[in-house]
Amino acid sequence: MSEAIGFIGLGLLGLPMATNLVDAGHSLRVYNRTASKAAPLVARGVPLVTRAVDAVTTGGVVVSVLWDDAALESVVTGDGFLEKLGPDGVHVSMSTVLPETARRIAALHARHGCTYVEAPVFGRPEAAVARKLWIPFAGAPAGRERARPLLEAMGAQGIFDFGDAVGAATVVKLAGNFLIISAARSLGEALSLADKSGVDARAVVEMLTTTLFPAPIYQSYGKMIADKTVPFTQSQIPKKDLGLFLRTAEQVDSPAPLSSQLYDLVSR
Amino acid sequence: MSEAIGFIGLGLLGLPMATNLVDAGHSLRVYNRTASKAAPLVARGVPLVTRAVDAVTTGGVVVSVLWDDAALESVVTGDGFLEKLGPDGVHVSMSTVLPETARRIAALHARHGCTYVEAPVFGRPEAAVARKLWIPFAGAPAGRERARPLLEAMGAQGIFDFGDAVGAATVVKLAGNFLIISAARSLGEALSLADKSGVDARAVVEMLTTTLFPAPIYQSYGKMIADKTVPFTQSQIPKKDLGLFLRTAEQVDSPAPLSSQLYDLVSR
Repeated sequence: MSEAIGFIGLGLLGLPMATNLVDAGHSLRVYNRTASKAAPLVARGVPLVTRAVDAVTTGGVVVSVLWDDAALESVVTGDGFLEKLGPDGVHVSMSTVLPETARRIAALHARHGCTYVEAPVFGRPEAAVARKLWIPFAGAPAGRERARPLLEAMGAQGIFDFGDAVGAATVVKLAGNFLIISAARSLGEALSLADKSGVDARAVVEMLTTTLFPAPIYQSYGKMIADKTVPFTQSQIPKKDLGLFLRTAEQVDSPAPLSSQLYDLVSR
Repeated sequence: MSEAIGFIGLGLLGLPMATNLVDAGHSLRVYNRTASKAAPLVARGVPLVTRAVDAVTTGGVVVSVLWDDAALESVVTGDGFLEKLGPDGVHVSMSTVLPETARRIAALHARHGCTYVEAPVFGRPEAAVARKLWIPFAGAPAGRERARPLLEAMGAQGIFDFGDAVGAATVVKLAGNFLIISAARSLGEALSLADKSGVDARAVVEMLTTTLFPAPIYQSYGKMIADKTVPFTQSQIPKKDLGLFLRTAEQVDSPAPLSSQLYDLVSR
């Protein structure tokens, strides 16, 4: 069934995901703070609205893919957003935020009779285009049921159900991003030792990623580091997401010696 | 062709590797500092000698699997070991040591006309029994050629050739062990965050090791950590091998912020 969907946030990840929805035959109304980024969709006849709330259909589904907690909070609390979404409305929130932010915003939704489903995304923009995203999700059962086919249409190759309690999927996302950053930086340190010892880093990557570490993360970062092509981008994502990991670890009293060290490294 | 082999070091890894050689039809003479550990081989008729040098056949192959640099150095420099090994003799050295130790000992061998092949081992004792070891190796071509079939017989499922220069395979081993320890400790930190946030760590492992990290290291450590069964053993190996990584990094002026942090962690 094709569903009318509001889509808020057409960044590097949001735009290809919205495009996948359009390709799947869904009717979208889109909003982005920088309107010009919607051009590829507008060219295909997708209506672009000037306020986030105008993307919302009462009782419908609205998807958001935003940069951080503040952006998400500002969309949800502004302009009568939740009042318009109303009873039976579902907000599929795909931003990476603090679990406590997700829980607080979910409670706000409940007070308006609507449902907050968290569905943070693992995958780079190319993976969204290639429909190779991995998505953990959590929230009330009816909301998850409605979200699932849309997540598939957005480009998920796998969806992982973490149950009713909002916050769980966000914890998984923070844990996963920390592991990705740790793997990438550890590879950098290991391959630097090889390189500076006169050992061909490409041969080391070839061995390790066909034996102990046959995982896409190790293969792709290993190749980039060995080839000295963009070993670490200027992306702000590692710093932001490690910051969220650390704040959450502090809140739940979980040890964080490696994430702290990684945060220092990516902040340099 | 079955070859007469001296085998020095019947520890947790050495014993199953020596057993594999016997199973493959090779004639061994074995030595171990603690003689009693040779009992399973002695019971099968394998001669146990009382000095390392007595395991050596002139012009033959001698294999050593020892705990550290000092043990390797003591075997090689003691009792006329190299004089007896002599021209055409090959020493297949499978201990994890400093690359500089490997190079220095290789030069000592060369002075006696014999060949030092380094072939440090990736794999736990169970992997040796199951013939699932991964072995990088380096050294003079003739020595490597003679070592290869023996490494296969010892239980290698893959052998990776790092060329003529001794030290290269040892660097690969140190880099790989650092990555293993980093992955395991990072998983511990990620799964602790999940657990303390009330998220089922088993479900997190299940998702992450079938998506981003489909690698044996993540799967086995992830399961152990989630099940709270022996998350980190009392093994001295991580501390020893991270120490070797750090000393080598210092020597070649390679950055080591994560290996330093991990060394602190495993030293607690």
